[in-house]
Amino acid sequence: MIQVGIIGATGYTGGELIRILQDHPNVEITLITSTTYAGQAISDIYGNLRGSCDLICQDIGIEQASQQCDILFLALPHGIASHHVTGQILKNCRIVDLGADYRLQDPAIYTTWYHTEHGSPELLDQAVYGLCEWERSTIAQRRLIANPGCYTTCSILSLAPLVKEGLIELDTIIIDAKSGVSGAGRKASQGTHYAACNESIKAYAVASHRHTPEIEEQLSTVAGTPITISFTPHLVPMNRGILTTAYASLTDGVTADEVTAAYRKYYGNERFIRLLPYGVFPETRWVKGSNMCDIGLVIDERTGRIIVGGALDNLIKGASGQAIQNMNILFGLPEDTGLHQVAGFPY
Amino acid sequence: MIQVGIIGATGYTGGELIRILQDHPNVEITLITSTTYAGQAISDIYGNLRGSCDLICQDIGIEQASQQCDILFLALPHGIASHHVTGQILKNCRIVDLGADYRLQDPAIYTTWYHTEHGSPELLDQAVYGLCEWERSTIAQRRLIANPGCYTTCSILSLAPLVKEGLIELDTIIIDAKSGVSGAGRKASQGTHYAACNESIKAYAVASHRHTPEIEEQLSTVAGTPITISFTPHLVPMNRGILTTAYASLTDGVTADEVTAAYRKYYGNERFIRLLPYGVFPETRWVKGSNMCDIGLVIDERTGRIIVGGALDNLIKGASGQAIQNMNILFGLPEDTGLHQVAGFPY
Amino acid sequence: MIQVGIIGATGYTGGELIRILQDHPNVEITLITSTTYAGQAISDIYGNLRGSCDLICQDIGIEQASQQCDILFLALPHGIASHHVTGQILKNCRIVDLGADYRLQDPAIYTTWYHTEHGSPELLDQAVYGLCEWERSTIAQRRLIANPGCYTTCSILSLAPLVKEGLIELDTIIIDAKSGVSGAGRKASQGTHYAACNESIKAYAVASHRHTPEIEEQLSTVAGTPITISFTPHLVPMNRGILTTAYASLTDGVTADEVTAAYRKYYGNERFIRLLPYGVFPETRWVKGSNMCDIGLVIDERTGRIIVGGALDNLIKGASGQAIQNMNILFGLPEDTGLHQVAGFPY
Amino acid sequence: MIQVGIIGATGYTGGELIRILQDHPNVEITLITSTTYAGQAISDIYGNLRGSCDLICQDIGIEQASQQCDILFLALPHGIASHHVTGQILKNCRIVDLGADYRLQDPAIYTTWYHTEHGSPELLDQAVYGLCEWERSTIAQRRLIANPGCYTTCSILSLAPLVKEGLIELDTIIIDAKSGVSGAGRKASQGTHYAACNESIKAYAVASHRHTPEIEEQLSTVAGTPITISFTPHLVPMNRGILTTAYASLTDGVTADEVTAAYRKYYGNERFIRLLPYGVFPETRWVKGSNMCDIGLVIDERTGRIIVGGALDNLIKGASGQAIQNMNILFGLPEDTGLHQVAGFPY
Repeated sequence: MIQVGIIGATGYTGGELIRILQDHPNVEITLITSTTYAGQAISDIYGNLRGSCDLICQDIGIEQASQQCDILFLALPHGIASHHVTGQILKNCRIVDLGADYRLQDPAIYTTWYHTEHGSPELLDQAVYGLCEWERSTIAQRRLIANPGCYTTCSILSLAPLVKEGLIELDTIIIDAKSGVSGAGRKASQGTHYAACNESIKAYAVASHRHTPEIEEQLSTVAGTPITISFTPHLVPMNRGILTTAYASLTDGVTADEVTAAYRKYYGNERFIRLLPYGVFPETRWVKGSNMCDIGLVIDERTGRIIVGGALDNLIKGASGQAIQNMNILFGLPEDTGLHQVAGFPY
Repeated sequence: MIQVGIIGATGYTGGELIRILQDHPNVEITLITSTTYAGQAISDIYGNLRGSCDLICQDIGIEQASQQCDILFLALPHGIASHHVTGQILKNCRIVDLGADYRLQDPAIYTTWYHTEHGSPELLDQAVYGLCEWERSTIAQRRLIANPGCYTTCSILSLAPLVKEGLIELDTIIIDAKSGVSGAGRKASQGTHYAACNESIKAYAVASHRHTPEIEEQLSTVAGTPITISFTPHLVPMNRGILTTAYASLTDGVTADEVTAAYRKYYGNERFIRLLPYGVFPETRWVKGSNMCDIGLVIDERTGRIIVGGALDNLIKGASGQAIQNMNILFGLPEDTGLHQVAGFPY
Repeated sequence: MIQVGIIGATGYTGGELIRILQDHPNVEITLITSTTYAGQAISDIYGNLRGSCDLICQDIGIEQASQQCDILFLALPHGIASHHVTGQILKNCRIVDLGADYRLQDPAIYTTWYHTEHGSPELLDQAVYGLCEWERSTIAQRRLIANPGCYTTCSILSLAPLVKEGLIELDTIIIDAKSGVSGAGRKASQGTHYAACNESIKAYAVASHRHTPEIEEQLSTVAGTPITISFTPHLVPMNRGILTTAYASLTDGVTADEVTAAYRKYYGNERFIRLLPYGVFPETRWVKGSNMCDIGLVIDERTGRIIVGGALDNLIKGASGQAIQNMNILFGLPEDTGLHQVAGFPY
Repeated sequence: MIQVGIIGATGYTGGELIRILQDHPNVEITLITSTTYAGQAISDIYGNLRGSCDLICQDIGIEQASQQCDILFLALPHGIASHHVTGQILKNCRIVDLGADYRLQDPAIYTTWYHTEHGSPELLDQAVYGLCEWERSTIAQRRLIANPGCYTTCSILSLAPLVKEGLIELDTIIIDAKSGVSGAGRKASQGTHYAACNESIKAYAVASHRHTPEIEEQLSTVAGTPITISFTPHLVPMNRGILTTAYASLTDGVTADEVTAAYRKYYGNERFIRLLPYGVFPETRWVKGSNMCDIGLVIDERTGRIIVGGALDNLIKGASGQAIQNMNILFGLPEDTGLHQVAGFPY
């Protein structure tokens, strides 16, 4: 059995890791940590886990944890992990970091968008961006996985085939994204108050959201040339789900057949990506509770633009599910081990 | 592998049966039927199932279906099953009826509350009320299971220990129940329109809801004497979940210890019932997506009443999950086979 | 023009007072106060008010405020008002206290339920419980109005005619109440986090909610004899609205006609109470945004109980609207001045 | 008093017209019609109106109605009005059509997008597009007003200053729009079922929504040159509200000061448009229940694009409120007569 530790277990992604791993046949959760809730049972915080996982939150550091576990999931706010992960820790165990610290290859860009110094830029070379469908062969060889952000996963999966195959004008990409409130995390604030979110929608962090450079860096890598995008997130009154609606001008002469062929080429055999029939757009309800990413698209002949929709569960494929998928790759397990949950309806 | 057929597969309970059974190791769904959607893939109706179950809805009757399957789940509106199930069908296969037709032992009471004749009163003796925690030994010996209603399951599980042990005045039981909108089914109507339900709560069917006699009959059996109750359902703006808040006057001299001992006696070892610490009340969010029923209670010394809260997922423990639990009993499988899903949060 | 001051203007009830008073022809808001937001425009906190009321929050005390205004609305947490209101302040201006401090006549009961000493028990005699429909003649003669709680208003209005006319057994009253999340106030906490409330329902403060003694005291006054009740509040995933479902055993021989006659007797001419046809139950959506209280009922012949439903907007008839209604009474204005808003649908 | 008739009174926009007009000092509603609900009181359908407006729905046609009223509001599905409105009717009374039939000047475009023939193309010249802020002088002189669509109002108001002043590249306009469910109307369907909308978001009618040509035609008029846009609507789980997020490339050299000056030029004195501080984006909660349109924007220096957010209440500024604003213009009343409602919070 793989000995798993979860650092920062009381956030939503920590809670989901614990829940999903209950069904994983090769895993034993041996350690969960929390500074705030040290000494409390996780099931006192997450009543859903009562009877399934009643582990007590420990207040121990990453280094000590790394000596007890085969793999650590770090579910921490940005700016913490990079100050604690070390080369020695990576020798002790594998790390899947659900935070932002190792997602950007360039520490200067990290500082620009996160307004803090990176704590361990020397480790960036050892990290790999854990977007499983595009990086699985590299992931398998690394010990430090930067699990992608929720908006990012949906955005990149939606657009990468077009970028890779040169089917769109790269300077025309606009991603209009929508997220459920759990994307803002468990911390109580005026912004996450029920009455502040319910029955309203808004854009936020317009032209300044931190997932922007993450999307750009990854799509640039796919394209082989730098890409700048517009990315606008919105807060939607629902618990879960990411929907991205991406716009780009098609390269001259590109046909619908070429477009759908590109998606089939890269995703036709993917376990966790469902390509919808041409013209059918995804809905977050069909992926909620699963590790799936649904993608649909249409070409608007009037404007020469392609519109691509992506949908996933921000806490699963956008966080904890993909983290487990990464773990499966790291340990040579079938990628969908423990991740077979089908979305429920109506959830 | 158990060959399973689902009659009326396109309602919510049908959809949930299919979804949950994807994870059941001993089952193969070999038949799904629908009159309305005959010829269509179930995954065109329930996009969550796309890729997991793409079976085509057949338009065949129960008799024919019974020849192809080891067990049929009937997910039909009330008043249909009893006109189609026959002794021959029960010889062909086992039946778990998720509808109301075989829940009431007395066909006269059925007619009073459902305003229609019962189609096969001669089969009532062969039916068993499929409340697993109270009837499992009988269930194991029958071939016709009347799967309980959602409100009913929550109400009876919450109150039965008090009734059984004589701890409350039987003529003082009041159950104030609250349900998510999926309890009203998939049919579109003014009453299930988004804007009619959202941001509002109401009582409905006050003093006339059809789950009333079902609760009464079962509690009367437990008590060994006839019981009449007040039952008031409410519609709550959420997808899923049943919460029951039950009131009763304690029998003179009953203590909190006696009460908690009674619950431990009947439920202490139940896989799908979680007894909360004294004074802690259940919340539907902690059971959503699972087959659990959470129960909490407190004694109000000022009034001499006990207040008991129950919570379950109306589509799982209140319908499809319990139906599968019944199937497991029927086939001698561990009761929780395929039913290990832990509630997610926030769902 | 009546010079109005609002003490603690940045809570929900403060915001609603400001909003509703924009339409009041006899009022000028001259002062709004807040300790936390002193120096900020109220419209920076409540964007809905932008352009309608851009007053700056002042950080001044009740005494100073009382010298500048004809009436002060106190929208403060419990336990503050009673330590600041004085006889001199009541000479300076009229006070409508939206908090709990002057609602209970007996300071010992206040201490029992609120776990704090009352700051000015000597003023309790001067206070009147501001339930307009039952106390308007007294209100008109007082300068200190204890504006009723939201649950309380709905509960008392629903039951008082039955109590007054002796139509029910007084020791059988059970009130099962449901509230939208705004009832918990604007303060951010785990309990008011969007994801903690959304898609879930729970009971809370069972057998211990502070509106219980308030209901009991008022109904006891109506009855002329002490009454003890069961009161259970629930948190419902919606912004606004209170629904109460009350149960009581009818006195022997009471008929439906007597019951409906009692309600018509007390409420037949009330501007803000709508009696629904027999058997029709209220829904919060029909009162949301208005100062209305809807009441419906049915007699359950099987159990001899009457079930009475009440619905109101907790921030209007349950708080700020009724406060304005009280102000209108205090100043001899028609009671519905500025309170003519019709509930919108779908809100 | 202006005698008002509402044709098709039982849809959401009809209901809102009735509600808002309760507060209009110059209006008497003398006629409401409905085919489906003829003979029923409107307050039996819309319980919020009980006691405020209990008019009975009549089943009479537009021509007969036009003889009884000074103005008719047509709240009908598209394709009906144009087959019934005649020159004679326009002599009898003024018409504000809340439907689509007279919004497009070119009947061929109407047919292309609505797949039906226009019933009275000869009247199109007499109609005016009733976007009050841009057409009020023309509106004042006409008798047939095509009240704009909800998405359209928000989109055009958001973008028109940029277009008018030549600040953006006209072929780069993309509008990503989000609507509450009431935008889909009151008709029950699988698509408007509570459980189908709640806890999910989706795009729909991508590259084919009928408000597209309406936006294009109006913006083209403003620009003085044909404009083609991308427009993608999304369904959001909330009752009300439209949010538009519009993207366009700035013309070379345009500064933020020029942009904000343009908005101030056109909207600085508008009663129903609120320009938010630079960088602040609108939220639908701040306009819900009011006739306001909030607009905010930011320039993304990295991409050279401007992002403009617009928000309004789809049933008020996006329908019934603007219809009343048009009526006020038609009758020479102050534009905000009866439209002073401030958005509530939390609604």
